[in-house]
Amino acid sequence: MNASGEPCFDVAHLGHVELLTDKPQESLDFFVNVYGLTESGREGPSVYLRAFDDYEFHTLKLTASGTTGVGHIGYRCASPQALERRVAAIEAMGCGLGWDNGDLGHGRAYRFEDPDGHLFEVYYDTNRYVAPEAERPALRNIAQRYHGRGICVRRLDHLNLLAQDVAAIRDWLPKALGSRITEEIRLDNGTYGGCWFTVNNKSYDIAYTTDNTTSRGRFHHVTYAVDQREDVLRAADICLENGVHIETGPHKHAIQGTFFLYVYEPAGNRVEIANAGARLILQPDWETVTWTETERKKGQAWGLKTIESFHTYGTPPVA
Amino acid sequence: MNASGEPCFDVAHLGHVELLTDKPQESLDFFVNVYGLTESGREGPSVYLRAFDDYEFHTLKLTASGTTGVGHIGYRCASPQALERRVAAIEAMGCGLGWDNGDLGHGRAYRFEDPDGHLFEVYYDTNRYVAPEAERPALRNIAQRYHGRGICVRRLDHLNLLAQDVAAIRDWLPKALGSRITEEIRLDNGTYGGCWFTVNNKSYDIAYTTDNTTSRGRFHHVTYAVDQREDVLRAADICLENGVHIETGPHKHAIQGTFFLYVYEPAGNRVEIANAGARLILQPDWETVTWTETERKKGQAWGLKTIESFHTYGTPPVA
Amino acid sequence: MNASGEPCFDVAHLGHVELLTDKPQESLDFFVNVYGLTESGREGPSVYLRAFDDYEFHTLKLTASGTTGVGHIGYRCASPQALERRVAAIEAMGCGLGWDNGDLGHGRAYRFEDPDGHLFEVYYDTNRYVAPEAERPALRNIAQRYHGRGICVRRLDHLNLLAQDVAAIRDWLPKALGSRITEEIRLDNGTYGGCWFTVNNKSYDIAYTTDNTTSRGRFHHVTYAVDQREDVLRAADICLENGVHIETGPHKHAIQGTFFLYVYEPAGNRVEIANAGARLILQPDWETVTWTETERKKGQAWGLKTIESFHTYGTPPVA
Amino acid sequence: MNASGEPCFDVAHLGHVELLTDKPQESLDFFVNVYGLTESGREGPSVYLRAFDDYEFHTLKLTASGTTGVGHIGYRCASPQALERRVAAIEAMGCGLGWDNGDLGHGRAYRFEDPDGHLFEVYYDTNRYVAPEAERPALRNIAQRYHGRGICVRRLDHLNLLAQDVAAIRDWLPKALGSRITEEIRLDNGTYGGCWFTVNNKSYDIAYTTDNTTSRGRFHHVTYAVDQREDVLRAADICLENGVHIETGPHKHAIQGTFFLYVYEPAGNRVEIANAGARLILQPDWETVTWTETERKKGQAWGLKTIESFHTYGTPPVA
Repeated sequence: MNASGEPCFDVAHLGHVELLTDKPQESLDFFVNVYGLTESGREGPSVYLRAFDDYEFHTLKLTASGTTGVGHIGYRCASPQALERRVAAIEAMGCGLGWDNGDLGHGRAYRFEDPDGHLFEVYYDTNRYVAPEAERPALRNIAQRYHGRGICVRRLDHLNLLAQDVAAIRDWLPKALGSRITEEIRLDNGTYGGCWFTVNNKSYDIAYTTDNTTSRGRFHHVTYAVDQREDVLRAADICLENGVHIETGPHKHAIQGTFFLYVYEPAGNRVEIANAGARLILQPDWETVTWTETERKKGQAWGLKTIESFHTYGTPPVA
Repeated sequence: MNASGEPCFDVAHLGHVELLTDKPQESLDFFVNVYGLTESGREGPSVYLRAFDDYEFHTLKLTASGTTGVGHIGYRCASPQALERRVAAIEAMGCGLGWDNGDLGHGRAYRFEDPDGHLFEVYYDTNRYVAPEAERPALRNIAQRYHGRGICVRRLDHLNLLAQDVAAIRDWLPKALGSRITEEIRLDNGTYGGCWFTVNNKSYDIAYTTDNTTSRGRFHHVTYAVDQREDVLRAADICLENGVHIETGPHKHAIQGTFFLYVYEPAGNRVEIANAGARLILQPDWETVTWTETERKKGQAWGLKTIESFHTYGTPPVA
Repeated sequence: MNASGEPCFDVAHLGHVELLTDKPQESLDFFVNVYGLTESGREGPSVYLRAFDDYEFHTLKLTASGTTGVGHIGYRCASPQALERRVAAIEAMGCGLGWDNGDLGHGRAYRFEDPDGHLFEVYYDTNRYVAPEAERPALRNIAQRYHGRGICVRRLDHLNLLAQDVAAIRDWLPKALGSRITEEIRLDNGTYGGCWFTVNNKSYDIAYTTDNTTSRGRFHHVTYAVDQREDVLRAADICLENGVHIETGPHKHAIQGTFFLYVYEPAGNRVEIANAGARLILQPDWETVTWTETERKKGQAWGLKTIESFHTYGTPPVA
Repeated sequence: MNASGEPCFDVAHLGHVELLTDKPQESLDFFVNVYGLTESGREGPSVYLRAFDDYEFHTLKLTASGTTGVGHIGYRCASPQALERRVAAIEAMGCGLGWDNGDLGHGRAYRFEDPDGHLFEVYYDTNRYVAPEAERPALRNIAQRYHGRGICVRRLDHLNLLAQDVAAIRDWLPKALGSRITEEIRLDNGTYGGCWFTVNNKSYDIAYTTDNTTSRGRFHHVTYAVDQREDVLRAADICLENGVHIETGPHKHAIQGTFFLYVYEPAGNRVEIANAGARLILQPDWETVTWTETERKKGQAWGLKTIESFHTYGTPPVA
């Protein structure tokens, strides 16, 4: 909601996620040859990657590091004016860190922190991906040709972060980004086990779930979308044959109804492949769906028990 | 764009389409048992229908009439204030017709006409569908249970209207609804053969193509979305076995990349079943993709020639 | 192998399975409206059912009874002469029970018992299903129209029986039916945990796994094939929405590589929906694939742990 | 039928097809990188290729030549004795050419000619493919890992030859190979427009259609099977993006009901990608389905008109 009680459309979409890896070569090989991203550039310790229909220069910034987890998360605003409004709101909230000059992928960005210490940025100026000759699509309405390499995901979909206090995020994110809460888990003790947010018609672009350790700023997973559930099934065979650890799936989430597969890239960051079907949140006054602890104990949509590591495993690992 | 040069988000989504039929019983049987819509009410000559995940009382109003074609098209606004802004803009454009009291499906609506004489309305107050006991879904984040009857489409997706002057619509609709033009066909003679518009992240919610007759206000087709391309293939077998006329498809559109099947319901209105995969227009500054006449002559994505009736057939039929 | 050391082709295919139910009305409703079989007749306590592309009068004989489990299993021979050869072989093995007059579905049949007490029959004369007007397919190469009701399975695929001594079955079945052993589980202690047999190019038409109770003659599951993996996923939603207990899946078997879903029909008999893709055993000298206990502990193809009830649950229940 | 009026099972399956190409490098690149076959050896002008689940050394022998079309077609017998029986039958028919020493893929083979001059061979001894370390599958019941390269077809399915006199073939092939005729087209003038044959449970392994030119011994297409219809759709995008000429499809055949896509490999030989779903011919006394000229004019299953080139184009081209 904005000041006048109307829905806020300042932020257009999740733009990119920076992932840290302590096995940069193995991680890069996974993201390019198994997951099917394409490199669009590299600078310093980072390689810039994107899916074949991502229109920006990059949606994944893979950075060599001494550890794993998330570097920062970028959201693209709908206009220069919308960016200014978001910066003003974030500064007023007291969580702003100031302007950054941007990188190979986009122009200046305003950085800020969530209550759990994850680093975010909002920006408008971006470098649009221009396909080189060999990557030009047969049809001009997609960003790059469908190359068919590996899982060949279509576009960045969402990410999931861990937080000590999901309730705090639940208050904070709608104020910072204008996000709507589409679904949430409310435990019997009144706390929130998880919360799903969106800034647009996707059913979610970010989720937060409770970190059951005492760590802060940790990462749960990043997800790219494929066009069909069959692509998720095919991804499972590709991961199986390439020795990629499959954590759980394919199956259908009860929450949000997406069809999913979770794997670990070689450095240990959790990565999802998902398909949402034709489901969108078009309703402007969508009412948050609140799941109870009892409902969650039923497991996923078709009865698969939620795997234990889903509640305990995140990156970086806890010492 | 709104007055300040920013994207306009006043209209949330396409709400409903009223279709006229001179074979009301056969049409209803098709929409319920073959297409898989569910009746939520009837009043006078109209039956109100919706797909299993449409959240409103209806998305299709099927009205017995002496002819076929489209009755009116409704778009739902994002807020009461957004509705007021749209009404003001439409009145200023001189195409307003005034307020209507609404029907079983929604509250008051402001009616207006496009340059070709099609009747539109914008509204905010709506009747949300409440599933009766027998239709309650196992998972609470969809509007109605997945009943599996017939093609079992998920939600209203878009419609296509015919117009004498697509260029006029191309100027008019962005002003009236704040729509963006995502793709278009520009013929060698400089006129527009077709234009695809959206008010949200869907790649389009309405398309206009040239009426090659001298008629006005005609209808090309209405489309509901299914979750998977496999559902479109399955729909083809269901139509085949139920004696429904298949006009063309399944195949993939070059424009917008959707996977499609076109059939005629018993009264002759063209109906599509489609799947867009994970493709969305998330980019706030999307640049219209303009297709040339030469490109269009290549046919659809995988080479299927566009069927001749696609350029000539609409409802009501031309005397 | 036949007497001259050549492959035996006397038995053409699994013909039908008789299932017992102590909830006949609920079971029938499940098989017709959820599973998507069609009734072709009834006599006494039995209803005869078949899938839309089964060419015989029935493939499932559902018989009201005081208990659950399997009644008998029928295999159709390739010719009258082949039937005589099988009867001679079975009689020589000492497990023959004699000729039966047949039922609504087929002519005379020779009955015999496996070492665990399950009742089998072989026959040649059969009643071919003739579709009534309303069920006639649009294309004449399928047995009945694709009606699209419920899961709408295509044809009977296989069944799985429990046995005290799988090794005994492993010797017996190739002699009785001329079956080949395509895959098997050999435990560390040298016994066989399971064995998969086929009489034709399907990768299996019957499997036996160890009964961990002291019961004899019990039933594990019966399976019908659907055309696509998407049909299995769709089946999961249909079962979910109809309150059918989903035991495990959808997932891909390591053994045989089929994509599966297991549910319990209302009386408690386990029923599977499966898709094998394009996999067939065309090789005449196929060598049995032997899985070790260690390999089996890895779970299914993509890592799903085999659900515990799979090793313990069968029908009839153990007192 | 064999001498005693029983079904004949002497021939196990279609083994391999030799294809001639006058663009050997381009054809090889297509078959390996687009179609997704794997090379297992080369000798002289030939490269031996196979799909990931073909168990033999090769199923496609690609031979550099001054022209295009088919070299020879190999069928594998069910046993050494069955091979002898087939050779005796073929010699008695007067179309035998004598024994050949075999090649990299298999042992000695008996060669013979069909009435239209196509070269066939039958053999039993074969070289089983042994996957090198890098190609070993994660699950031991498939021949090679699912590599995911290009279309990644699973196995050889069938081929289609052109002939001056389909009726002559219709008499000849059941005698030579023991094939059954599953479907056929009978024109109004009493001649046969096409005929579909099988030696096993597949609905066909070879088809003959009328050559409307005066040429003899020509080739229509070869087909490999994929597991799902989605793989056929995906293949269409892969061909589109790789500049491969798509002739027609994806669509569903009326005859045999397979889901198809036809393309031309770079030298001009027609290649199909197809999926049959779970359809098999298990019935031992299957009655040939005869399609009339009127029925064929309706086009394919969902109404697609059969493309004109399908009736005129074959390889080698007619001078």
